[in-house]
Amino acid sequence: MGNPTRLLLHGAGGRMGQALLRLCSERDDCRVVAAVSASQPSQRVIDGVPHFSATELGGAPDFDVAIDFSLPPGFDAILAACLARDAGLVSGTTGLSGAQHAALQDAGARIGVLWSANFSLGVALLEELVERAAGTLHGWDCDIVEMHHTRKLDAPSGTALALGAAAEKAGAQPRYASLRAGDIVGEHLVQFTTAGERIELVHRAGSRDIFARGALHAALALAGREAGVYRLRDMLA
Amino acid sequence: MGNPTRLLLHGAGGRMGQALLRLCSERDDCRVVAAVSASQPSQRVIDGVPHFSATELGGAPDFDVAIDFSLPPGFDAILAACLARDAGLVSGTTGLSGAQHAALQDAGARIGVLWSANFSLGVALLEELVERAAGTLHGWDCDIVEMHHTRKLDAPSGTALALGAAAEKAGAQPRYASLRAGDIVGEHLVQFTTAGERIELVHRAGSRDIFARGALHAALALAGREAGVYRLRDMLA
Amino acid sequence: MGNPTRLLLHGAGGRMGQALLRLCSERDDCRVVAAVSASQPSQRVIDGVPHFSATELGGAPDFDVAIDFSLPPGFDAILAACLARDAGLVSGTTGLSGAQHAALQDAGARIGVLWSANFSLGVALLEELVERAAGTLHGWDCDIVEMHHTRKLDAPSGTALALGAAAEKAGAQPRYASLRAGDIVGEHLVQFTTAGERIELVHRAGSRDIFARGALHAALALAGREAGVYRLRDMLA
Amino acid sequence: MGNPTRLLLHGAGGRMGQALLRLCSERDDCRVVAAVSASQPSQRVIDGVPHFSATELGGAPDFDVAIDFSLPPGFDAILAACLARDAGLVSGTTGLSGAQHAALQDAGARIGVLWSANFSLGVALLEELVERAAGTLHGWDCDIVEMHHTRKLDAPSGTALALGAAAEKAGAQPRYASLRAGDIVGEHLVQFTTAGERIELVHRAGSRDIFARGALHAALALAGREAGVYRLRDMLA
Repeated sequence: MGNPTRLLLHGAGGRMGQALLRLCSERDDCRVVAAVSASQPSQRVIDGVPHFSATELGGAPDFDVAIDFSLPPGFDAILAACLARDAGLVSGTTGLSGAQHAALQDAGARIGVLWSANFSLGVALLEELVERAAGTLHGWDCDIVEMHHTRKLDAPSGTALALGAAAEKAGAQPRYASLRAGDIVGEHLVQFTTAGERIELVHRAGSRDIFARGALHAALALAGREAGVYRLRDMLA
Repeated sequence: MGNPTRLLLHGAGGRMGQALLRLCSERDDCRVVAAVSASQPSQRVIDGVPHFSATELGGAPDFDVAIDFSLPPGFDAILAACLARDAGLVSGTTGLSGAQHAALQDAGARIGVLWSANFSLGVALLEELVERAAGTLHGWDCDIVEMHHTRKLDAPSGTALALGAAAEKAGAQPRYASLRAGDIVGEHLVQFTTAGERIELVHRAGSRDIFARGALHAALALAGREAGVYRLRDMLA
Repeated sequence: MGNPTRLLLHGAGGRMGQALLRLCSERDDCRVVAAVSASQPSQRVIDGVPHFSATELGGAPDFDVAIDFSLPPGFDAILAACLARDAGLVSGTTGLSGAQHAALQDAGARIGVLWSANFSLGVALLEELVERAAGTLHGWDCDIVEMHHTRKLDAPSGTALALGAAAEKAGAQPRYASLRAGDIVGEHLVQFTTAGERIELVHRAGSRDIFARGALHAALALAGREAGVYRLRDMLA
Repeated sequence: MGNPTRLLLHGAGGRMGQALLRLCSERDDCRVVAAVSASQPSQRVIDGVPHFSATELGGAPDFDVAIDFSLPPGFDAILAACLARDAGLVSGTTGLSGAQHAALQDAGARIGVLWSANFSLGVALLEELVERAAGTLHGWDCDIVEMHHTRKLDAPSGTALALGAAAEKAGAQPRYASLRAGDIVGEHLVQFTTAGERIELVHRAGSRDIFARGALHAALALAGREAGVYRLRDMLA
């Protein structure tokens, strides 16, 4: 194995940032060279990782890939920093404007970029399987059922809609049902039914850690790729 | 075992009637002494079973229980015949008027009567389990998901509403989701969810024969009971 | 649409043969030009379809594809007939000898041949999805659970083993569990599990008709293909 | 509401003990008056809760119920302490000797005692539902499938065996299948199958916190009961 991939974490103070710091500390193939938070850090170095505020982004050391789970106002700065350092960018920041998404696409001409609303590798695979199934099972009914905790307000979930889009692209006409119950992290069922037989494709998330693991997987994979706009699905083995 | 239970089948020409004739021919503990159809039968005796038209109901031999899967216009006559013969009545005829349901209730003072919209014994048991679970799992979310073939127009299914009523009676507030796909005979899931755990109670019907089997079970059980108004649940062992 | 595909049914007296006769009678894109049974047919023409005994195979009219659900002793003759007529062969006959399987492979140099132990299109697709999933989800646990009716003696089912082989080919190490209960036609679950997430790929067969439908689909698809050895999976859209 | 129930936690240093301390600190209807660990506590009072070592058990203040998740060598002392204080005992300590179980039974003549291998209220309810279902569904096949994380060595799980015992008591003959995969906390399926229909009763545990919650529920319920030997099932609403 070569040198560990050098990561910059943007949004290090958030839940995903904290999970990523913990994950990286347990691995040899990557190293967090800069943890960037919105506000001034209380300590300069925590557990061996240098901390910076967003305004100090320019002073961070070189890195191979930035992982960004922050808020839209800070997005332009991290994208600019990646372009300046010729580094990749993996972003899960939601609520980006159309202009920000367009800037990300443009950046793909010079660096590797990947944005996703859901960093579960299982969901990324499911999306691919659904597209394949829908492209084969012409005329079968397609139903998508998703379950999430009761604090989730939007329905169907973004992931259900992404699965449905994959099915539609292949010719199916998915229908949706949404359940909100208990503290369910996230479950998605895509079901294809015809006379006498049925296929069920299911993903169950039991822990939010999987999203941090998927984002780290994407960052390490991106480090070895050419410039371009990638989807999480492209990073599956 | 004593004498076989003597059955009168009302609505013998329908799908349920035919299934009941087939079922009874394979058993020793019951005997169809009269198969009554709306129209004049083409033969008087088929496979050893005497056939009658609805207008000949008065001429049928004595019977212990009538099983009725017919249409509302014929209901008053079969109920009257049961009262006249002091026989029980198991009915799955749908679309009865309020007055007809009331007459059935009144008849319960003199004979055993049982009406149900669904004669699956599994569903009858599920209803009971749901009521018990809902009475125990205070504060858990309760969701009911039902799936049926695409020709079913009403939603939620009557069975889902009956399961929901059982849950509500015990204090839960069920929510419903309905899927229509392929040729699914009927599937019902009642799910109770709280932080960290979940209970799923599921019934899957794979064949419509189960309804005929359940109706026959109810008729044989009713033969040994006192006058009264029974539910299918009361006939579970 | 061009001319209907001309089919020869070998094993027309069996359960699959009867189902295929019924299916073909309802369609315009195929026509059974010969129904071949082991024994002498009672009538020469039934519902417009000419019937032959196995010994009369040589006298059957020309056909595009033969569908064979018979017994090993008759296999050599039907394969020879297909080679002689330059017609395709779809076979679901089980218990073939090694030599017979080898002869089928050899025939693939001159005609289109397809043999499968399971003609459900859903299962064929599932096999493909399992291979894709296993090739992606490195290090995830892989478990296969199959359920069948209580008269099925072998376990795991041939289909479970085929799914497992697809998973193994892609690097997974599947474990098997088998349940025998009621009259379940056939259900297969392939489950991939890692820390915090799980993917379940399920096929449920509710009716044996799906196997006849899948065999017919394969035959019609084979009619348009070049010589070669095909799998059912290759005939998915 | 009356005075909060006074609890003594025996085994306060273990995973269950820590979870119970956290849970109790968030509630008004109970108060931990003594946290007892095997070894000498580093501090006398932590977050307002007095800490004791096992050898100081005699000096603990009065309590209504003791909750014991410790090891067999300490069991005799906590049982004696409960008898001396006329307090209830809820124990989840595994590996008790036959003599220790017998002593617990005897104690039931004077105080309320409850021992369980699994403190999930959902599982306790499932056990009851399974017994009811098995007592009704004569002749249906009964299968139990359990899934746990790969570090679990025993199979079938103790919970699966308890569910099976409930089914057997009601006349069923359960068969077991066990899967070990990923980090699954614990899932149990009890399935009843007959011709044409199937009932599935499922419990899914997503977090180990449910066991602490169930033990606390049992302790608060026990506080209001007469002397006797209770099961967790008896504490369901």
